Amino acid sequence: MTGLPAHHPVETLRWRDGRLEMIDQRILPMRFEYLSYANADEVAQGIRSMVVRGAPAIGCAAAYGVALQALAHQHVNADEFAKAMDHGFEVLAASRPTAVNLFWALQRMRESVQSHSQLSPPQLASLLLTLAHGIAAEDVRINQAMGAHGAALLADGARVLTHCNAGALATAGHGTALGVFRSAVAAGKTIHVIADETRPFLQGARLTAWEMVQENIPVTLITDNMAGHLMKQGEIDAVVVGTDRVAANGDVANKIGTYMVAVLAHRHGIPFYVACPLSTIDMQLANGDAIPIEERHPDEVMGFGAQRWAPPGVNVRNPAFDVTPAELVSGLITEKGVVHQPNEAKLKKLFQS
Amino acid sequence: MTGLPAHHPVETLRWRDGRLEMIDQRILPMRFEYLSYANADEVAQGIRSMVVRGAPAIGCAAAYGVALQALAHQHVNADEFAKAMDHGFEVLAASRPTAVNLFWALQRMRESVQSHSQLSPPQLASLLLTLAHGIAAEDVRINQAMGAHGAALLADGARVLTHCNAGALATAGHGTALGVFRSAVAAGKTIHVIADETRPFLQGARLTAWEMVQENIPVTLITDNMAGHLMKQGEIDAVVVGTDRVAANGDVANKIGTYMVAVLAHRHGIPFYVACPLSTIDMQLANGDAIPIEERHPDEVMGFGAQRWAPPGVNVRNPAFDVTPAELVSGLITEKGVVHQPNEAKLKKLFQS
Repeated sequence: MTGLPAHHPVETLRWRDGRLEMIDQRILPMRFEYLSYANADEVAQGIRSMVVRGAPAIGCAAAYGVALQALAHQHVNADEFAKAMDHGFEVLAASRPTAVNLFWALQRMRESVQSHSQLSPPQLASLLLTLAHGIAAEDVRINQAMGAHGAALLADGARVLTHCNAGALATAGHGTALGVFRSAVAAGKTIHVIADETRPFLQGARLTAWEMVQENIPVTLITDNMAGHLMKQGEIDAVVVGTDRVAANGDVANKIGTYMVAVLAHRHGIPFYVACPLSTIDMQLANGDAIPIEERHPDEVMGFGAQRWAPPGVNVRNPAFDVTPAELVSGLITEKGVVHQPNEAKLKKLFQS
Repeated sequence: MTGLPAHHPVETLRWRDGRLEMIDQRILPMRFEYLSYANADEVAQGIRSMVVRGAPAIGCAAAYGVALQALAHQHVNADEFAKAMDHGFEVLAASRPTAVNLFWALQRMRESVQSHSQLSPPQLASLLLTLAHGIAAEDVRINQAMGAHGAALLADGARVLTHCNAGALATAGHGTALGVFRSAVAAGKTIHVIADETRPFLQGARLTAWEMVQENIPVTLITDNMAGHLMKQGEIDAVVVGTDRVAANGDVANKIGTYMVAVLAHRHGIPFYVACPLSTIDMQLANGDAIPIEERHPDEVMGFGAQRWAPPGVNVRNPAFDVTPAELVSGLITEKGVVHQPNEAKLKKLFQS
């Protein structure tokens, strides 16, 4: 197991020597390693294989992927450059289907390409890199704003369940759900985090637990099937999770298992909050039924890493996300404030204000 | 991965050359091996370390443990024999706290010891072995009776979720919940089993999936946090689980996570059945709050087998069971028939009839 240097913030993505480097989240916390990316195909493969994951981090990675693609092809002729850029947008858009931040970031990059058609490829590449840096920096600022709004919802001493990893590792820094915990701790509150391990990729056991241990925020790990029992025993005061896409009516897509947590929280009168930057809200989708749910490879469920424990011959389902209906959501924590009991009218207003 | 010889029923416990042999369920399905037991201390250790698990199988193992203890000490003097037997009952009773079948089986063995105080140690040892064989044989008969009653509840083509392993491996044979599926298939029905993997010990992924694959009963493996999503999608028609202890009011203790499944099934109007021999009903306990819930070692949650994936420094909770309130139970499937919407009056009547 590997730790960071003391008091060193997690840099999920970083720019080094003209390349994107990303922490390999498949092997944390057993090993802490950066992998290096030079073009859109490589970044798309990094997203698909979950070297990087988490909706905001995927958005940032995709933005850098576009910039890398431009840098890698800046010296070819205009036609070939345009072809390479089209290919780059295409492979990045096809890398993962559920998180809307990916498409939001690609759209911002594409608009910049289209509105600067007078620039030479080297000039455009430079502009796209600046834009990617800007998207990453903005993500951290947004997470800090969300953190402040969310922290106000948590009592001193609160025992807060989270599912999956909506931390610094899922973003450009600070985190969405874990950003709320970090901000609460920074504001002087004691927060006890309960982390669902989050099978099959174990983002909770490996990433959330690691982030909290690094910062000395008390964290208790449980398997996903224990959350209901702890709620029944009165051991959980609130739930805060991240999200990959929120529909116009407030339905929330997030890591598989979030829906079960929400149903149990509702039964036990425990508030269920979703940390959600505006870039994760998809006003084009009327409700959660229209959110595409990625089905991943059976091997992930049949074991972990190189280890297999299920017998050959078994069928497997592996949906990576589920949808929690808005009726179960106590509040969406956004950078503009908390939307309590979200619905379409409230979300529309959020984008107008 | 190892299979059984074709059409060979699973022999969870077997008597060979004066010893108890038990399949090592910690390493299935990667390896299929029997371990051998010669006295009560060894059997208690086998139960504690989960070589054998499942409430009825634990009861049978404990009965054999008492018989082995008598056989191992049959040639010492009467005082030492009595002392060895007391010790045997003690270590077996302390092996695991939640499943009541353990205490039920020990009580039957103890009553036999007490009512045959005129016998010599060798005679008593022989009698106790006969009794242990009888308990195991009776368990199979009971499971077949439960299977017939339960099979009638399932429609042809039903997609049935089960949690943990309440199969042949959890009993002396046939199984409780999986016994219902086996009986339904034997009656000509098509049953699609959906198996929760059941962290942390992975009884679903390793044992239930293996048993079903061995018998060509279609089985789909999911992680525990996917059950709610599949119910929401309309992909589950019924739930059948086993139990470790049922209180007098019908509250059901079973493997951790069962409660979450029951709450979700209730939300979606899916019937939730519990396969439950009478030996698992504890009329001494008014309700589920009084059922002791075993908390196991943190290592189980921090990884699987020899592999660790959680970072050092994380706290862990590891309750092995939870309690599902009777209000969420559609029916208890017993060897005497199905008790729909169980309550104390109905359970009392069950023992009187």
